[in-house]
Amino acid sequence: MKTIKVGIAGIGRMGKIHLENLATKFHDVDLIAVSDINSAVKDFSSHFGVKKFYPQFKDLVNDDEVEAVVICSPTDLHAEHIKIAAKAGKQVFCEKPMDLSLSTVNEVQKVVEKSGVKLMIAFNRRFDPNFIKVKQMVNDGKIGIPQIIKITSRDPGPPPISYIKSSGGLFLDMAIHDYDMARHIVGKEVTEVYATGQVFVDPEIGLEGDIDTAITILTFENGTMATIDNSRKAVYGYDQRLEVFGSSGMCGASNNLQDNHFYYDKNGSHGALPLDFFMDRYAASYFNEMKAFIDCLKHNDVLPTGGHDGMMSLAIGLAAKKSLQEKRVVKMSEIL
Amino acid sequence: MKTIKVGIAGIGRMGKIHLENLATKFHDVDLIAVSDINSAVKDFSSHFGVKKFYPQFKDLVNDDEVEAVVICSPTDLHAEHIKIAAKAGKQVFCEKPMDLSLSTVNEVQKVVEKSGVKLMIAFNRRFDPNFIKVKQMVNDGKIGIPQIIKITSRDPGPPPISYIKSSGGLFLDMAIHDYDMARHIVGKEVTEVYATGQVFVDPEIGLEGDIDTAITILTFENGTMATIDNSRKAVYGYDQRLEVFGSSGMCGASNNLQDNHFYYDKNGSHGALPLDFFMDRYAASYFNEMKAFIDCLKHNDVLPTGGHDGMMSLAIGLAAKKSLQEKRVVKMSEIL
Amino acid sequence: MKTIKVGIAGIGRMGKIHLENLATKFHDVDLIAVSDINSAVKDFSSHFGVKKFYPQFKDLVNDDEVEAVVICSPTDLHAEHIKIAAKAGKQVFCEKPMDLSLSTVNEVQKVVEKSGVKLMIAFNRRFDPNFIKVKQMVNDGKIGIPQIIKITSRDPGPPPISYIKSSGGLFLDMAIHDYDMARHIVGKEVTEVYATGQVFVDPEIGLEGDIDTAITILTFENGTMATIDNSRKAVYGYDQRLEVFGSSGMCGASNNLQDNHFYYDKNGSHGALPLDFFMDRYAASYFNEMKAFIDCLKHNDVLPTGGHDGMMSLAIGLAAKKSLQEKRVVKMSEIL
Amino acid sequence: MKTIKVGIAGIGRMGKIHLENLATKFHDVDLIAVSDINSAVKDFSSHFGVKKFYPQFKDLVNDDEVEAVVICSPTDLHAEHIKIAAKAGKQVFCEKPMDLSLSTVNEVQKVVEKSGVKLMIAFNRRFDPNFIKVKQMVNDGKIGIPQIIKITSRDPGPPPISYIKSSGGLFLDMAIHDYDMARHIVGKEVTEVYATGQVFVDPEIGLEGDIDTAITILTFENGTMATIDNSRKAVYGYDQRLEVFGSSGMCGASNNLQDNHFYYDKNGSHGALPLDFFMDRYAASYFNEMKAFIDCLKHNDVLPTGGHDGMMSLAIGLAAKKSLQEKRVVKMSEIL
Repeated sequence: MKTIKVGIAGIGRMGKIHLENLATKFHDVDLIAVSDINSAVKDFSSHFGVKKFYPQFKDLVNDDEVEAVVICSPTDLHAEHIKIAAKAGKQVFCEKPMDLSLSTVNEVQKVVEKSGVKLMIAFNRRFDPNFIKVKQMVNDGKIGIPQIIKITSRDPGPPPISYIKSSGGLFLDMAIHDYDMARHIVGKEVTEVYATGQVFVDPEIGLEGDIDTAITILTFENGTMATIDNSRKAVYGYDQRLEVFGSSGMCGASNNLQDNHFYYDKNGSHGALPLDFFMDRYAASYFNEMKAFIDCLKHNDVLPTGGHDGMMSLAIGLAAKKSLQEKRVVKMSEIL
Repeated sequence: MKTIKVGIAGIGRMGKIHLENLATKFHDVDLIAVSDINSAVKDFSSHFGVKKFYPQFKDLVNDDEVEAVVICSPTDLHAEHIKIAAKAGKQVFCEKPMDLSLSTVNEVQKVVEKSGVKLMIAFNRRFDPNFIKVKQMVNDGKIGIPQIIKITSRDPGPPPISYIKSSGGLFLDMAIHDYDMARHIVGKEVTEVYATGQVFVDPEIGLEGDIDTAITILTFENGTMATIDNSRKAVYGYDQRLEVFGSSGMCGASNNLQDNHFYYDKNGSHGALPLDFFMDRYAASYFNEMKAFIDCLKHNDVLPTGGHDGMMSLAIGLAAKKSLQEKRVVKMSEIL
Repeated sequence: MKTIKVGIAGIGRMGKIHLENLATKFHDVDLIAVSDINSAVKDFSSHFGVKKFYPQFKDLVNDDEVEAVVICSPTDLHAEHIKIAAKAGKQVFCEKPMDLSLSTVNEVQKVVEKSGVKLMIAFNRRFDPNFIKVKQMVNDGKIGIPQIIKITSRDPGPPPISYIKSSGGLFLDMAIHDYDMARHIVGKEVTEVYATGQVFVDPEIGLEGDIDTAITILTFENGTMATIDNSRKAVYGYDQRLEVFGSSGMCGASNNLQDNHFYYDKNGSHGALPLDFFMDRYAASYFNEMKAFIDCLKHNDVLPTGGHDGMMSLAIGLAAKKSLQEKRVVKMSEIL
Repeated sequence: MKTIKVGIAGIGRMGKIHLENLATKFHDVDLIAVSDINSAVKDFSSHFGVKKFYPQFKDLVNDDEVEAVVICSPTDLHAEHIKIAAKAGKQVFCEKPMDLSLSTVNEVQKVVEKSGVKLMIAFNRRFDPNFIKVKQMVNDGKIGIPQIIKITSRDPGPPPISYIKSSGGLFLDMAIHDYDMARHIVGKEVTEVYATGQVFVDPEIGLEGDIDTAITILTFENGTMATIDNSRKAVYGYDQRLEVFGSSGMCGASNNLQDNHFYYDKNGSHGALPLDFFMDRYAASYFNEMKAFIDCLKHNDVLPTGGHDGMMSLAIGLAAKKSLQEKRVVKMSEIL
């Protein structure tokens, strides 16, 4: 049986998830090495049987044993790391976003294309079992022509202000997942974006020039409309819902709950809240996306999400930002 | 026990509902007379024990026995009928909309104010038990500050083209209910409107210059945002949902279903669809709004919805129409 | 259009429901007269336009105008009233139970058969829209052969002790509805009964020799098994659920709720309770059963529930009582 | 950090689950050795880094490194293996049932008590997150005094006839889990059992003297009543529900579904089915029960389920069997 020889760059929160999945759930992967500037994470990778540890990314890439790299480094290194890996002829799996600048993303795309390696951008939600089921129903024509997409995406609490300073803000670090989901479901490109937003959760977020609550409307080239609402803080948990309305019906997915208990007393009926941690909510999707990457490499198939997806979601996020600032509808042709 | 002496003008679809409710469920009402240009409806009113029938509205108003008139005449007569009734010193309950022109509505308002009679505009959904419960939870502070309102409002099928020709279109005959609901829940005024729409259901609707599928975003003076999606045709029934998200939680109402059956076979779990006829869906609200009108007259209380509500919903609808046509955000100050 | 000329005997709680329904919702009924020993109810019937009032049941029956009588008198008069009406050649609709003695029920049956009139026993739950839907799914073969029936039937609170003294107890005044429902769904007769019970709600109920909480298992001639649980007091409302499990699937009906609101806060998700008053919960069934009666009379059809149904449910209740007392399984052949 | 040194006996279906969990999810366990008469399973254990493999159970027990043994051998070896392990002074985790004979179970109990080792019987469902939540609500007094327990437990399909020949039948291999759950929730002992059953699924099951569909009623010493319905075949999946009704409310757990999608078309609303494989449905419980075992060993705590629980569930199963055969209520005092 062919195995894929993998190296992981950056053993932070996402790096640990991918490392543990690759080490314990993949029988067709050899985990060759990890790289991280912080040598303290070496214990973690050793525990899972990874033998080589590199402080420098370039050494990981230059390890002849490594065929594919999983890039989980900080966002501002993604573009650089993809380019280095591509030039070295390694297959690449990279956490989103590719970068916060469209021109950089474009440049990365060109390098990847020239190199001939495969690049997968980790839009993990596409691999969530609920959303897979929704996408499949849409593809099977069960709702006819999609007309209205509704996405609710609310975090259980805001990230630290330090994160917001460099993340690009709500549209680029949070809503970008929902823009990708809308594109994924419709299977078409967006032509117009309108976004509005407020600071409701924390005034400090406003001081950074960002918002914490927003609604975006996307119009697609085929007329489909999407409305996406985001909040940095839903006190009742991590609210992740999708609904697709079409000419022959409606489909969607409700939240994954913490459990399935019910309770009735004289005051009402009561039940569980949504899972409130993204790693629990999307545990299956992190495994599934990695499985898709590994399987495609094994069978030399086209990867399900690539640089184009990364670029388009970023562009929609930039359009939303501009729409909010200029209080007007923004055409995608102004951005791309 | 004091009784209120009522006359009904126009025994069409809504007139029949109000007549039957008043005749069979109100012990404190005397149904004095009805008026309709079509004498064929006389049988209907006689069956419910109404003794007097007038072909002309003015004769109904001039009947000294009549204290209050329920106006269910065609939309283009509403303004005229309200003015006649007000000048004659009769209390007025009028179906929505008051008119499709803001200046006419303004004029009606002035006449009513000068006359000193009470005017209730029949925004029946405010009296639906589900939405009453939602409003009450919001008022009780159970969700804290409302941040995002989501309203889904989809009809089971489009009205005849003839209706659309004179109704003012989707924003003025359909979404107007949802605009009123958003205003009702937030308890503030709207400052900006963005609307987008498509013709998905029937090209003939497009030929009339209207759309059949739309999303509207309202921004309120206090920052609350509302997203409202409308469709003329949901194949699965009459879809009427409301969700209010705030700083301390989320509340809302799901659809009223045809029944509560469930069925599991090897293909999945299955259940009932939403009620698909507005008269079934909103049966309770039609009774409740009339009860509110009668009770307020009896106790000389302020009516729950008045001319101002009719005017503001109309203005939002006109702003939405302008937004769609000019593909831009419209400020309410441009309209009012 | 042929109309059915109806008299109502006994204007108590059920009599008022039937009177109001017949007076306001039936266009093919003439409500001729009512009888009640209490002349104070005359105002109620006059309000709904009933012209004749008789203090004595026999005078109602002897009124030549009356074709059909609706018997809502106290339980201990049911048998006598049915016999009088049948002998007078009137069609009969009678509230359940027919009587608490099997021999009396048998005798009534014989009188009715000899007279040739139609007799409908008011098992209203068979006419509830939810349970109609379940019965229809079973009849359509959607679950294949029914194997297990589960009925949950819990009242919001116990009746007065005075009622329990004469009602025959939980098995005969409450579970009897569920026994009828099980027979209705399976469409076969019961062969064995096992019942167990406790006094949990009120020790006074125990002092009367009754229980307030019970489970009954019925075995049908075709092997289908039913488990029925009853309680006199569910603090969360009137709990009325049905589930039918079979070789090809499962179907059933969940509770009718007070409304469809939802609420999420940091402690959990919350919703409405079941309707907690039997007249609200079964409002539609009271109308539907009367409509079935009137329609069958008009078209000379066989009535949907007759004396045999009344007798069999009573017999099962008596078997359950014996099973509890003797702590053993009771065969229906011991009772019938 | 103290680690527990574990050996696993029998690498069949359950052995593999425990081995994989212990190898990948426990940082405080050293997996020392496995034993199995089938040397083909050695590859599986090696893959997870287990170094020693013994064909004989006694060699595993005699390995000085092994502190605790996890017994997943065939049921008819459980009693023997527990005794060998206890005599060798090893802590024991054993799959249920301990044995099909009460006298053997009694004997095992005595050996274990004399040896002073700890014995945990793997009633995994007690460790399911849903049922943990229900138990906690009951313990917290949220429903007051438990009055009625309802357990639905239906398999997606029957086991092979060969399994039924030696399993003890539906009451001992399947309903026994539910009897344990009822005891667990109530926290009291059962005094009376009534069971009835049928062969609906497969006549061959009947030829083996077993049934495939059953209802059991348990009466507890404190009056609480439980009704448990079992089927070997639910076409819609693995149906595992629990409901507890008490003086102050009702709580319970509904099924774990395959996903959370919804779909509405003109025929109805549709959703997912329950998970249909016990290893998926109870994946969390298998991990949680092992964690409880390891944690108790580490902290020298009392194990949550012991030999007494194994014995009592078996006794209830035997009483149910006798009740079915003799068509009567069986007192637990006849069995124990």
